[in-house]
Amino acid sequence: MAPRLIAVYRVRSDAASIEARAEAIAVEQSVEMPVSAIADPEILADIVGRVEAIEDRGDGLFDVRVGLALATVGTDAAQLLNMVFGNTSLHADVVLQDVEIPAELAAAFGGPRHGIDGLRRRVGAVGRAFTCSAIKPQGVPPARLAELAAQFAQGGIDFVKDDHGLADQAYSPFAERVAVCAEAVRRAAGATRYVPSLSGDLDRMRRQVETARAYGIDTVLIAPMLAGWANFQTLVRTYPDIAFFAHPTMGGAARIAPDLLMGKLFRLLGADAVIFPNHGGRFGYTPETCRALAEQARAEWVGLRPSVPVPAGGMTLDRVPEMLDFYGPDAMLLIGGSLLAARERLTEETAAFTRAVARHSYR
Amino acid sequence: MAPRLIAVYRVRSDAASIEARAEAIAVEQSVEMPVSAIADPEILADIVGRVEAIEDRGDGLFDVRVGLALATVGTDAAQLLNMVFGNTSLHADVVLQDVEIPAELAAAFGGPRHGIDGLRRRVGAVGRAFTCSAIKPQGVPPARLAELAAQFAQGGIDFVKDDHGLADQAYSPFAERVAVCAEAVRRAAGATRYVPSLSGDLDRMRRQVETARAYGIDTVLIAPMLAGWANFQTLVRTYPDIAFFAHPTMGGAARIAPDLLMGKLFRLLGADAVIFPNHGGRFGYTPETCRALAEQARAEWVGLRPSVPVPAGGMTLDRVPEMLDFYGPDAMLLIGGSLLAARERLTEETAAFTRAVARHSYR
Repeated sequence: MAPRLIAVYRVRSDAASIEARAEAIAVEQSVEMPVSAIADPEILADIVGRVEAIEDRGDGLFDVRVGLALATVGTDAAQLLNMVFGNTSLHADVVLQDVEIPAELAAAFGGPRHGIDGLRRRVGAVGRAFTCSAIKPQGVPPARLAELAAQFAQGGIDFVKDDHGLADQAYSPFAERVAVCAEAVRRAAGATRYVPSLSGDLDRMRRQVETARAYGIDTVLIAPMLAGWANFQTLVRTYPDIAFFAHPTMGGAARIAPDLLMGKLFRLLGADAVIFPNHGGRFGYTPETCRALAEQARAEWVGLRPSVPVPAGGMTLDRVPEMLDFYGPDAMLLIGGSLLAARERLTEETAAFTRAVARHSYR
Repeated sequence: MAPRLIAVYRVRSDAASIEARAEAIAVEQSVEMPVSAIADPEILADIVGRVEAIEDRGDGLFDVRVGLALATVGTDAAQLLNMVFGNTSLHADVVLQDVEIPAELAAAFGGPRHGIDGLRRRVGAVGRAFTCSAIKPQGVPPARLAELAAQFAQGGIDFVKDDHGLADQAYSPFAERVAVCAEAVRRAAGATRYVPSLSGDLDRMRRQVETARAYGIDTVLIAPMLAGWANFQTLVRTYPDIAFFAHPTMGGAARIAPDLLMGKLFRLLGADAVIFPNHGGRFGYTPETCRALAEQARAEWVGLRPSVPVPAGGMTLDRVPEMLDFYGPDAMLLIGGSLLAARERLTEETAAFTRAVARHSYR
């Protein structure tokens, strides 16, 4: 019997229809044609998707476990997404709730190359959560962004990342921005890492990584839903010395559970840290979703290193103790706009942030 | 005043909150920080997103028109998606409903390089709709797929495409599949085009196009939501002789209107034909959605060539007249599994399909 991965679909249905609906999903995500038109017994046995279980979750929702042949995925990340959710993403009644993969497939992907411990070693964050902020806004020249990066570094922050909207625009070309920001952070002479944001096609992202590396940078930001999963996978494989932060932009495909997409699958692809919208900020995720996402990022799972969960999105200094108690020390707090609002007091406000994280007593 | 593109968001809200919600979206999709923390008057004037209009659509829905600075997008397709919907995709109350772009941005993208007329010239489809089918299932060896391709070609079909699940699997490696399928179709000596499916990262997709071209193939299938938009854009620019069919897999980001995503934006990126789920088949799109999508693909728009709309997904021979009357002759009918179900009568069934399309009298 050929090995399978399990995709779990949460389907809105009535009890009378769920078995047929489950079968239809299993066919859609494998052979995508009438099973009656398939003559070959090996295809029927080894390739056609198989409904393994249907669980009634109440309120008209059912969890359908479908076994999909590993051979249809191979080891390509984009093809993984295609086979577990591709056409079924077009159905309004289905959410991709979970994916269970055998250790052999996990090993082929490889997951985070550095993970929580690797990032701790880099910035010397021992026994505490990480800190992070972002340089912005869009439109200001590189020199101004570099000033902000310098102030964050002087305030002792661990990571200062590009705003994810910063790409390679005329007003802030990637190479020029990275040159001055890397230099500004280096001069502050701490352990702070500047994390530039990759954009464009694979060729361009590769050139960006090479440019960043030439300036001594060892951590970059990538948006998997924009980059294409196969390209993210290629970058992780090509640059094992580089740590990757995953940004959730365009991750709102409502029909993939956020904890699965950002916590589990981005980790599988190789994200060392996963940024996501924290509850009670600008986005509508619940505390339960955030907790599940953080757990997916850190849990023991098929032999992969843990990723750092990075709650973000409208966070403020006064929420630091509550967030640390909620997520524990294996997390990274990202506060952007609220620190930048301090303007000329940015270094002091950053120092207050890093102190609050370093001195926190976990409940 | 710097030029803007317009993103239209359909927001679920109450009337008392909509103005603040609209402002929040405009900020999220541009500077992503408190506007009060921005000192530079040029950023405030030229970069911060601007709410241009709010229209009450009834039933608690509002259309919010936001002007976004063209400078934040540049000419990168992934960055376009990032700026028009990136973080806002994470909000459950918003659908991206439309994007209006100035002709200068459209020209930078270029749209379809061949379009409806270019495809008509290739396959000699004059005054009638196109016909298309797919080789499958997953798991069968290339020789078997090539037999099917030969039968489709003998039946006079215009395009025979790879099932979108066919990638570069061990049981059907891309290079081997393309070699035998191209040869099988060539031997049929008609105008039929074999359309192989690209997969993997940009490097691999480029090699696949080169391989296909070496076998005389001039049309390929790509899944923009898997490939990454910037990579699709690069392929279109690199291979102007190749026609691209766009596949909708993973296009179910519920929060982008299907007519916008598949009809308008895939066309902007350069799709010569756009495949989408027809109403009344395996997927739940309404006739109105399908009509709007087809119109977006073909309408006069910012100087771009029209794309061929390709309704698909569980279509059958008996629906041909109705589909032709619904879509008119500037369309391509794609019937896959239902033809394959004819098994040894595949050539005859295909011939019946192509005859029905060629002889149809449009109402």
